[in-house]
Amino acid sequence: MLPGCPIRVTLIAFTLLMIVVIRPHTPPDLVEEVIREISLLGYTPNPIRGECQTVVAAIGDETTHASLESLNALAQVERVIRVQKRYKLASRQSHPETTVIDAGGVKIGGADFVLMAGPCSVESEEQLMVSARAVKAAGATVLRGGAYKPRTSPYEFQGLGPEGLRMLAAARAETGLRIITEVLGEHDVDLVAGTADILQIGARNAQNFRLLVACARSGKPVLLKRGMSMRIEEWLLAAEYLLAHGNPNVILCERGIRTFEDYTRNTLDLAAVAIAKQETHLPVIVDPSQGCGRADLVKVLCRGAAAVGADGLIIEVHPNPAEALSDGQQQLDPEAFATLVGELRPFVQAAGRSF
Amino acid sequence: MLPGCPIRVTLIAFTLLMIVVIRPHTPPDLVEEVIREISLLGYTPNPIRGECQTVVAAIGDETTHASLESLNALAQVERVIRVQKRYKLASRQSHPETTVIDAGGVKIGGADFVLMAGPCSVESEEQLMVSARAVKAAGATVLRGGAYKPRTSPYEFQGLGPEGLRMLAAARAETGLRIITEVLGEHDVDLVAGTADILQIGARNAQNFRLLVACARSGKPVLLKRGMSMRIEEWLLAAEYLLAHGNPNVILCERGIRTFEDYTRNTLDLAAVAIAKQETHLPVIVDPSQGCGRADLVKVLCRGAAAVGADGLIIEVHPNPAEALSDGQQQLDPEAFATLVGELRPFVQAAGRSF
Amino acid sequence: MLPGCPIRVTLIAFTLLMIVVIRPHTPPDLVEEVIREISLLGYTPNPIRGECQTVVAAIGDETTHASLESLNALAQVERVIRVQKRYKLASRQSHPETTVIDAGGVKIGGADFVLMAGPCSVESEEQLMVSARAVKAAGATVLRGGAYKPRTSPYEFQGLGPEGLRMLAAARAETGLRIITEVLGEHDVDLVAGTADILQIGARNAQNFRLLVACARSGKPVLLKRGMSMRIEEWLLAAEYLLAHGNPNVILCERGIRTFEDYTRNTLDLAAVAIAKQETHLPVIVDPSQGCGRADLVKVLCRGAAAVGADGLIIEVHPNPAEALSDGQQQLDPEAFATLVGELRPFVQAAGRSF
Amino acid sequence: MLPGCPIRVTLIAFTLLMIVVIRPHTPPDLVEEVIREISLLGYTPNPIRGECQTVVAAIGDETTHASLESLNALAQVERVIRVQKRYKLASRQSHPETTVIDAGGVKIGGADFVLMAGPCSVESEEQLMVSARAVKAAGATVLRGGAYKPRTSPYEFQGLGPEGLRMLAAARAETGLRIITEVLGEHDVDLVAGTADILQIGARNAQNFRLLVACARSGKPVLLKRGMSMRIEEWLLAAEYLLAHGNPNVILCERGIRTFEDYTRNTLDLAAVAIAKQETHLPVIVDPSQGCGRADLVKVLCRGAAAVGADGLIIEVHPNPAEALSDGQQQLDPEAFATLVGELRPFVQAAGRSF
Repeated sequence: MLPGCPIRVTLIAFTLLMIVVIRPHTPPDLVEEVIREISLLGYTPNPIRGECQTVVAAIGDETTHASLESLNALAQVERVIRVQKRYKLASRQSHPETTVIDAGGVKIGGADFVLMAGPCSVESEEQLMVSARAVKAAGATVLRGGAYKPRTSPYEFQGLGPEGLRMLAAARAETGLRIITEVLGEHDVDLVAGTADILQIGARNAQNFRLLVACARSGKPVLLKRGMSMRIEEWLLAAEYLLAHGNPNVILCERGIRTFEDYTRNTLDLAAVAIAKQETHLPVIVDPSQGCGRADLVKVLCRGAAAVGADGLIIEVHPNPAEALSDGQQQLDPEAFATLVGELRPFVQAAGRSF
Repeated sequence: MLPGCPIRVTLIAFTLLMIVVIRPHTPPDLVEEVIREISLLGYTPNPIRGECQTVVAAIGDETTHASLESLNALAQVERVIRVQKRYKLASRQSHPETTVIDAGGVKIGGADFVLMAGPCSVESEEQLMVSARAVKAAGATVLRGGAYKPRTSPYEFQGLGPEGLRMLAAARAETGLRIITEVLGEHDVDLVAGTADILQIGARNAQNFRLLVACARSGKPVLLKRGMSMRIEEWLLAAEYLLAHGNPNVILCERGIRTFEDYTRNTLDLAAVAIAKQETHLPVIVDPSQGCGRADLVKVLCRGAAAVGADGLIIEVHPNPAEALSDGQQQLDPEAFATLVGELRPFVQAAGRSF
Repeated sequence: MLPGCPIRVTLIAFTLLMIVVIRPHTPPDLVEEVIREISLLGYTPNPIRGECQTVVAAIGDETTHASLESLNALAQVERVIRVQKRYKLASRQSHPETTVIDAGGVKIGGADFVLMAGPCSVESEEQLMVSARAVKAAGATVLRGGAYKPRTSPYEFQGLGPEGLRMLAAARAETGLRIITEVLGEHDVDLVAGTADILQIGARNAQNFRLLVACARSGKPVLLKRGMSMRIEEWLLAAEYLLAHGNPNVILCERGIRTFEDYTRNTLDLAAVAIAKQETHLPVIVDPSQGCGRADLVKVLCRGAAAVGADGLIIEVHPNPAEALSDGQQQLDPEAFATLVGELRPFVQAAGRSF
Repeated sequence: MLPGCPIRVTLIAFTLLMIVVIRPHTPPDLVEEVIREISLLGYTPNPIRGECQTVVAAIGDETTHASLESLNALAQVERVIRVQKRYKLASRQSHPETTVIDAGGVKIGGADFVLMAGPCSVESEEQLMVSARAVKAAGATVLRGGAYKPRTSPYEFQGLGPEGLRMLAAARAETGLRIITEVLGEHDVDLVAGTADILQIGARNAQNFRLLVACARSGKPVLLKRGMSMRIEEWLLAAEYLLAHGNPNVILCERGIRTFEDYTRNTLDLAAVAIAKQETHLPVIVDPSQGCGRADLVKVLCRGAAAVGADGLIIEVHPNPAEALSDGQQQLDPEAFATLVGELRPFVQAAGRSF
């Protein structure tokens, strides 16, 4: 095994098939050089010679040898194409049955369509309680609320911290709702995991690999948001970090990607939900509030999410959005949320789920 | 009116509100210079003075005067913000009732959810007829099929041209399906309009303003695809070209935007469908085949499209996708299409529509 | 040859190498089905069998057979990878020596670094003449100026049309500057080519294939802007349209791509300039005015463009940018342009060019 | 002050000017409601009434009151526009003179153009020493090399960790080069800061706010890479976290943004370099290796970076790129690096710098 490569998942095939494309009209001796280098790196080369261009298919094990992508450094190599998917534990191939996660009794990924709702930030005992009672009454089973807030500017409200966690615990005690809340840093994992039923890893931390490993070790279910500019493959590889470090309870969350469009804060990628359901065995939740950043679109995007096969939703609800300390523009008031849930039901049923 | 500005829509307010933001700590005389220039350009300036920064709200008529955006050229101007939406005829404000378009008897934008389907390209009489009969049997009312194909490479199949149009007309004669087909250039508008019930303007031509004007003048309904990198505002302004040049029968079509994601060919932006329905009075169709470029995702994306309020779908169907001359990877075979339609019904009904 | 595929460039190898990746764990008979289909489509299949996945390298001629990309339609095919570049005539492989284009005596692509400058739009005789004299005095050899303007909104200034062309011709007569001006539609090609020394195809029309063909046939040098969301390969294939339709005088123009960044109008992609110089034999010009949409950045971006190996620049210069009828925010006044040119010289010289 | 808002920078104006745009044709009483709410939130409202639309300019202090962005939650509000820049300490307005940072004697941001170079990852004592001697001989003053590597997949080489740090210290001892190396998590800051002269925060951690705060507290100079999908404003706000938490020694690093282009790994945004130099007083370094992900483009992009005014470069150099354990495709060998540096000199001089 390579130095510095601590993870080795047994019982999984890491045998690779890579395609090394050699530039057209490369002289034969330089083609042979590439073939020799592939052997040297521990792979078996299979050259296919076209009229003016050769490609070499290489077979080997990437965990015991360096990746062939470094061959791009050779002038006569045009590109190196990886054939296999890089996620293993997350893939449906390795785990055909769908994973259902138990978060304090709430089943995620099964027949029930799960509603997670609550304020963007925990702002006060009263604000949280009003929200919690309202979302429960409307049908939610998980309460969201940020005690630690990742904010673009250091001068913005950063969350109430431990005090916020205490309020969340109190809300659970009263309502029975399960708690999901974001963890911002490795240092906080133990503290947050002491209260939360589900740890949330935010979009900005989706490739904070240290945080992924720390959350994996907590043993708690983890909801992993897709990073703003993450390709689906990278998102699933971030989930793979959680799985490979011993935590099987991973929930994926699509929350929009960054594009040039400016009528919405992000572009919600509902095809990614369908792909994640197909490629992996993990539950997939959609965050329409972050996904568009506009309260007026949340209702229809919830319908779209249910229709494409999401396992649930996480929705921002605040007693008085216009005075919210963060993201008021995308939070629903309790009444709008109740209407949304009522009108959502036929779409959830059409998708073969219930709530 | 300005020279070179041929369009003047009467009865519409073109009065503008623009905000000119002056750099912080600009000396008073340079602030006054901006205010004078605003007056000079024919607008009424309203300065608001903050502690260290001044903004000037300007009110005026942009069709009789140059846009204030040119004030960005002044060193002391930080930016110029346009407050008003630039589309007028397309907006719901100017036309509150929803437009229903009659395309040879098929109503688009009304209670019926419209299915348009057929091959990417018209390849032969037989291929088209098999497709037409199949999509009709499954419930489609409009037949799609490209006689002129915009292809990225000049060496790719460019379509059968007039011969393809003839085959489309024959398919209509036999099946009664209405015809939608793409028009690539100004020169072809008359010819294509002679056959088509709906002219399609493709994503690559969505800001080909000459083609927009020529299609507007044809009098035929026009389906306008969103360009690959078009912001929603730009898409609606392209629709505005059609409307302002006298054609009220404009159908919008969301077909995915270009992003960094590479598991799909485009990123289907279903929020854009909801926004287009809200901002405009025009029907909105979704193209899930182009939207993702993968046959295996078309079914769920159709459900998502129905759920967010689309007025219909345009779907690629080919008797034998693996041998298609263009875009085989995203075409469904007739059987898959029939299944898709059957399974789609509850989602369409949940959205309050029928087919 | 396929029906509808009018272009056949002789003396060029169209032999393809494609890689068909079959899904892991596909049963042998379904693998064989793919191999048979490849043969059926006229290609020679070369399977390489890995531990749990097979890939098939296929060799054949894509102009006489359908592209293998349609094999994506088979459920057991994971993806089809094209190995070869799709541009032929544009590539340096087919034409190793660098092309130098003669536009009415101005050499583009040779030792001289070419400065094209002038107003965004031709607005009046005086505005154009003042601009022309100023840019000539500062060192430009080509005058730019739009007589036909592609505008996002139908209500914006659309250019002076034929009158603008007349003014451009008068400016050439007086100053000796060569003329570059945009052509918007097929119908205008003859008229514009009657005046222009170089036809400009704008970013929004970069995949208006009918316009490309019409401009190719004009015989005039054509400057092809990169479309807002065009990958480099697509840009070079648009150039290939011009070349394949008989016009060898193609100038590429990088003008920024659309991204999420909003401090600039576009993101100028200077790496694309270096790639275009390496991949093709064509001259490459940079448009820093469109590239950033801000006059204050034009100067340094010109330096960057020269440094990465551009063959010249096209810069917007207006006698009074704050009152320009289009894009005032990105136009320089004559004095700023003269300063820019003076300060640019050492960078151009460092790049081994002169002006 | 708001609860949970720990940072309060005195002597800086936080007075805000925001523009609240009310939807056209809103009835007067609903307009008044917005105006009242603005007052309630502690801001002074200044309404400007256009023909069919009202905007309200609001003046107030955002650190003592909630942001007005929450007003987007009101149905009659179309949007809320922030006028002021959100970075204060990073801005040139607050600190007009250019900051020069001393990293163990190497001055960054002054007259000298700084070359940082070395392998992507520290792989072995010998690999590092060969690299260090080579880059020093060619003119570098800072040695880069990752001991902790953020890798997309958990199965890829993760760096040698403390052993790698030891090797870096040994390389400094022998060559006198200063050391820059990446810190991945809060827990490692002390350890890494014990060896490094400059802490590097990678693109994936650019909004890992906990890591930013921890690095700020280390007192060491910090090089902050721009995140893959970060707007310039967000990048400068991440720098603001470092500054607001007491560390004045912040170096910005442009390393490309994620776009749809696939001929390069990222799109190097050289306009962002010029903007960062203009908007802030901080030094700006360019990483062309990450910026394009291709060794063959590094040389010209270095020239472009120098030309647009960068303060230096950070370049990946490896004794044998084809066998590198990470990112071989973008690493130069020592000979190519020496050539690059020699050919770069005239561009650096043209930019008024030296090395």
